[in-house]
Amino acid sequence: MNAHDSLMLLLALGLLLLVGRGLGELALRFRQPPILGEILAGILLGPTVLGRLAPAMSASVFPAEGPVAVARHGLAMFAVTLFMFVAGMEVDLSTVWRRGRAALAVSLTGIVVPFAFGLVAALLMPQALGRETGADPTVFVLFFATALSISALPVIARTLLDLNLYKSDLGMVVIAAAIVDDLLGWIIFAVILALIGEGGRDVGSTVLLVLGYAALMLTLGRWLIDRSLPFLQAHLSWPAGVLGFAIILALFAGALTEWIGVHALFGAFLAGVALGDSRHLRERMRSTIDQFVTAGLAPLFFTTIGLNVDFAANFDATLVALVLVIACLGKVLGCGFGARWAGTPKREAWAVGFGMNARGAMEIILGLIALRAGIIGERLFVALVLMAIATSVMSGPLMELALARPRPRRLVDLLVPGMFKNPLLATTSKDAILHLAGAMAQEARLDVPAVQRAVLARERIQATGLGDGLAVPYARIPGLPAPLLGVGISRTGLDFDAPDGRPVHLVFLLLTPPDDDGAQIELMADIGRIFRHAEIRERAMEISGFTELRALLRVDGAHR
Amino acid sequence: MNAHDSLMLLLALGLLLLVGRGLGELALRFRQPPILGEILAGILLGPTVLGRLAPAMSASVFPAEGPVAVARHGLAMFAVTLFMFVAGMEVDLSTVWRRGRAALAVSLTGIVVPFAFGLVAALLMPQALGRETGADPTVFVLFFATALSISALPVIARTLLDLNLYKSDLGMVVIAAAIVDDLLGWIIFAVILALIGEGGRDVGSTVLLVLGYAALMLTLGRWLIDRSLPFLQAHLSWPAGVLGFAIILALFAGALTEWIGVHALFGAFLAGVALGDSRHLRERMRSTIDQFVTAGLAPLFFTTIGLNVDFAANFDATLVALVLVIACLGKVLGCGFGARWAGTPKREAWAVGFGMNARGAMEIILGLIALRAGIIGERLFVALVLMAIATSVMSGPLMELALARPRPRRLVDLLVPGMFKNPLLATTSKDAILHLAGAMAQEARLDVPAVQRAVLARERIQATGLGDGLAVPYARIPGLPAPLLGVGISRTGLDFDAPDGRPVHLVFLLLTPPDDDGAQIELMADIGRIFRHAEIRERAMEISGFTELRALLRVDGAHR
Repeated sequence: MNAHDSLMLLLALGLLLLVGRGLGELALRFRQPPILGEILAGILLGPTVLGRLAPAMSASVFPAEGPVAVARHGLAMFAVTLFMFVAGMEVDLSTVWRRGRAALAVSLTGIVVPFAFGLVAALLMPQALGRETGADPTVFVLFFATALSISALPVIARTLLDLNLYKSDLGMVVIAAAIVDDLLGWIIFAVILALIGEGGRDVGSTVLLVLGYAALMLTLGRWLIDRSLPFLQAHLSWPAGVLGFAIILALFAGALTEWIGVHALFGAFLAGVALGDSRHLRERMRSTIDQFVTAGLAPLFFTTIGLNVDFAANFDATLVALVLVIACLGKVLGCGFGARWAGTPKREAWAVGFGMNARGAMEIILGLIALRAGIIGERLFVALVLMAIATSVMSGPLMELALARPRPRRLVDLLVPGMFKNPLLATTSKDAILHLAGAMAQEARLDVPAVQRAVLARERIQATGLGDGLAVPYARIPGLPAPLLGVGISRTGLDFDAPDGRPVHLVFLLLTPPDDDGAQIELMADIGRIFRHAEIRERAMEISGFTELRALLRVDGAHR
Repeated sequence: MNAHDSLMLLLALGLLLLVGRGLGELALRFRQPPILGEILAGILLGPTVLGRLAPAMSASVFPAEGPVAVARHGLAMFAVTLFMFVAGMEVDLSTVWRRGRAALAVSLTGIVVPFAFGLVAALLMPQALGRETGADPTVFVLFFATALSISALPVIARTLLDLNLYKSDLGMVVIAAAIVDDLLGWIIFAVILALIGEGGRDVGSTVLLVLGYAALMLTLGRWLIDRSLPFLQAHLSWPAGVLGFAIILALFAGALTEWIGVHALFGAFLAGVALGDSRHLRERMRSTIDQFVTAGLAPLFFTTIGLNVDFAANFDATLVALVLVIACLGKVLGCGFGARWAGTPKREAWAVGFGMNARGAMEIILGLIALRAGIIGERLFVALVLMAIATSVMSGPLMELALARPRPRRLVDLLVPGMFKNPLLATTSKDAILHLAGAMAQEARLDVPAVQRAVLARERIQATGLGDGLAVPYARIPGLPAPLLGVGISRTGLDFDAPDGRPVHLVFLLLTPPDDDGAQIELMADIGRIFRHAEIRERAMEISGFTELRALLRVDGAHR
């Protein structure tokens, strides 16, 4: 690689991350998984869009061959190996045991039913499903069935977190079932890869080695890792020692399964499961790897997908629709049936089905390996990617619909610049309320004196100082369509008759609709959660502008 | 890249990380920078050792050409770009302003004197210093002078931390001076790269662009980043948004300077300085990037050095000795003189000189770029690497010698399995002391009753319960050569007459030599620091074995 190659490589990586992260953030804004934006970024920068609009530019920054392409490919491979390792670390096997019967029922029907659907469909109409001429029919049928059976734990976990369902019974059943489906799905897929004999070994011994690796890694490997972690933490530097150990583990596990003749990602995934299961793994370590890989490396892989395949030329509407319908029917009905079987109420059973239906990154990675191995062609690959995206996108809203359960509200979503007063110029709690409530009523075009009266009347019944320098005056305002939040910061301190007698510096004024019982509770809980820490309260006092307030509520509110 | 290439790449990366991290840990054990071990690992796995012992194996895992080599090279480049970015983030410009005169004096003489030494030496004996035939004499002389002037901030910071000098006046002067020298050194080096005109641009405009980039990045760029961070934290996901931003910044800054015609690392370094200087950058973000890059990526670069150069064939003892002597004389005398000039006492002035003398990673990276650009040959490169290692290794011990200041003792270094009692079977504080002191005396072959009597006598004068469930009984034992630490964990709780009246679960028994006043103070301070947090005290109660105790004191004691 010469200087020009270095320049092009850095430029390409920078662009992939920039557009990938940018569209990923946009996806998050619409409560969608960021991987959606990353794949879209690749499609934009690849042959589908940029390659058509500016072929010369596309060829010089994202060449298909030569040292820059090879280096980019190597980096993407490093990235996805660690991504699968991190995905494995999120698998908590103990969840499965704890959820026992329900999880087993859902995971069983959730893998058997879509597998059967896929099997029958691929047998009945292989051409319509995009089987390439020359592809082994058995391998194609098995792959198609497996592709429909897999779930995407990371997407499912994020959706559940977003709906505040992660720690609920329902959420744990979904997670446990997704874990089993992911594990089984990947093992079946590894066996399929063994069948096509890429490793140059005979099928029987490859299958045996695959199953042997899986069994050993999840038992002996898991035990060995759990035993060695305290030793490593006791004797190696922190955190570099354990971090290095984790990455080395992922690389060697990947190399081992690649040597067996199945893909490296299978090995890295199971190694991640084994490491993540150890109670000795510190949360700090887990999050350092997870965050860096998710934000800095994974986008390099997911954007690459769009760089390699022309999504326009290979788009086949019938095939996409067919794959999507079969995939959704199999998974939603299968898992829903399993949940009913285990005694889950009807609405929740639908929610389980919709939750498990998300395919996310797992499907895409599976499809890419199959594409490279020649099991499927680009048309079916494009259909699988679009199916993975569609099922991930619809998962959250459909669960919400099934449960009729809206997302809890957060302070940060209610912030409005015109309702932020810093400094809040007032010397008494009454003045502060008049000032802040007045500004809010004006901004929201409400009746200013009526709002002020309502808040003051509520304050007279019971003072709203919480202690620790916080006060949360509030009132229900007839006709208000959604809750409003005003924030005032007082430098001098105000007397809100707080239980600890200390002056109040942070005033949160809540106005809620009369019939919305949840709003006040959810927002008060958010205030309590964020400002529990003295450090955050002190930092809030030093805020100089609205953007810093937003940053405080998002950033410090997020990771505690 | 086919399946075999993937296997070889993963294997190569795994091996580089394993041997690199392993020898890095070994280096840390001897209180040396881990980069030392990583470079040694590359030498072992490269042509110098493995290539001689097992040429076939070496060629298949670490090929010099082909897709695996290109992919490895691309990854190493990605790694070192982020490494330089992180090194830049450690630069705290405000330290320089705060230290004003002294820092300026040391940095000025610390760059002028070695530069002059290098200049004169390279002019007088270019052949002896390894100037290649055909190399531009002016460029060679300038490079050699610059190579002697550079410092290595990361190594210096770690040495000062290790000696507990980081926050001292002396430490801050050294850090501030090293910052200035690093910045100036890299700017001068970028100008030299501009002189050889790699970018295909004329020298004048390249130099102008380099200086313009440096000036803009450290003023406008710094200001823009500081202004946008709160906005990014307010509107992007946390932490992925800001993490992605940082990596994208590093990549684009690198691409920009590569385009200007100087190396990408210069751009990434200054972008790191600009980002790291923002008060809005959260510590959590800084440490996530830092830790992942240091443990998971940087070793991939530093081991690569040994893969590319044969250190045995290019070892020239005279050249190595010459470079080492000139480098040390220039830097130690220059900085020592500057420190004296600024009014530093004599011993401390020597310490400043020895501290600034560490060249570490910076010298090696500089040398590698010069090697690739054809400014120097492999012989001088090897000499520069060895000089960098030698100056880094001697820096800590020489500072210690100059200041006659030993390292503070830590609990974790005193742990002995035989002096750990879990559970500590005792129902009174007296029994606990008898039991623990007895075990310690036996293990250390001391007079058991005498030791027990001494501790009990001390306990009678004043009870040693500290509150929060901790007690630290102690005694001075005549004839003891070094402090001893016993640890007991009581499940039932013991009455040590603690100020908060709560039962004691953790007993640390200290035995110190009579004339060692520091030992008790340092160890008590360490106990206070580690067990200040309720979470750690609770975790300590759940310890089941000696290794877990060691892990607790190292890991939880380290990052708080």
